[in-house]
Amino acid sequence: MMKRLPLGKAFTLMESGPVVLVTTRYGGKSNIMTISWTMVVDFTPLFAMTTGPWNHSYAALRRSRECVIAIPTVDLLDRVVGIGTCSGADTDKFKKFGLTPVKGKLVGPPLIRECLANIECNVIDIVKKHNIVVLEGVAAYYDGSRKEKRTLHAMGDGSFVADGRKLDRRKMMRSKLPDGV
Amino acid sequence: MMKRLPLGKAFTLMESGPVVLVTTRYGGKSNIMTISWTMVVDFTPLFAMTTGPWNHSYAALRRSRECVIAIPTVDLLDRVVGIGTCSGADTDKFKKFGLTPVKGKLVGPPLIRECLANIECNVIDIVKKHNIVVLEGVAAYYDGSRKEKRTLHAMGDGSFVADGRKLDRRKMMRSKLPDGV
Repeated sequence: MMKRLPLGKAFTLMESGPVVLVTTRYGGKSNIMTISWTMVVDFTPLFAMTTGPWNHSYAALRRSRECVIAIPTVDLLDRVVGIGTCSGADTDKFKKFGLTPVKGKLVGPPLIRECLANIECNVIDIVKKHNIVVLEGVAAYYDGSRKEKRTLHAMGDGSFVADGRKLDRRKMMRSKLPDGV
Repeated sequence: MMKRLPLGKAFTLMESGPVVLVTTRYGGKSNIMTISWTMVVDFTPLFAMTTGPWNHSYAALRRSRECVIAIPTVDLLDRVVGIGTCSGADTDKFKKFGLTPVKGKLVGPPLIRECLANIECNVIDIVKKHNIVVLEGVAAYYDGSRKEKRTLHAMGDGSFVADGRKLDRRKMMRSKLPDGV
């Protein structure tokens, strides 16, 4: 079950560079794209992602100025790749990939129930010169009841790595962590 | 031993979102910062990273318009965290952390011999509004002789995850991969 996560912790969902699904909604249609070109830009949180007119979702993103970043886990890999290799122009991806849209609180595009985490975002800027979209997270959710919590990282050559061993350096890092994290 | 990697494959070094070390050089002094807020922006390759005046390296980056992205592995974790929690203003980080600077071919900042991969970069733009620095990779190196190849991913809370199990989806992804990758 998805529970609200304090916004001040939402950047931690993206910091490790996982492959994400990004949902958009425009003209009564929801769509999903797979993207790994993202980064955190600020703890508040702000995120950047690289996308442009070559993605069908870009028009919806530009027009609605909203999206949801949904973070999938290892068990969803084939759906993540499938979503990334077909187009919303001719496919209802929620239907095709058996994913459940969940209404968000603050934005129109849906959360994805099957994902580990979801972040509702507003588009606050598009740096056209570099195809960089800047997003502000406005609500975040985490499904702590899910057994599989390993996220995926794309290697860029068609292979992926799952999260492996966890290494704790919280004490050494304390001076660099924002309050409450 | 570091060997040249074709530039067309350099984006694959960064695609998974690893924690990286970024070296700069200005006024005869080399420095290193730890950064996980990076992303690929283009296959050519272009990268974006978030940094600003709060990092001592930023002045060198802005003035020299050059840097090297060095990609460390799990065995270097304590040095990666150490580098990220002290300042080049009062510390020679190569010396303090026992890292070996290696002269690059095309830029002034040094590669780091102990890292798995290095990418020489030019700063091609700074999007001041968002503290986003856009980099063009101009030479890339990979040390395939290294046994430990697992990179690190920051969780943002002072913990890290190492690369885990590798999952091959090259066939499914073929249509999305650039030639030669």
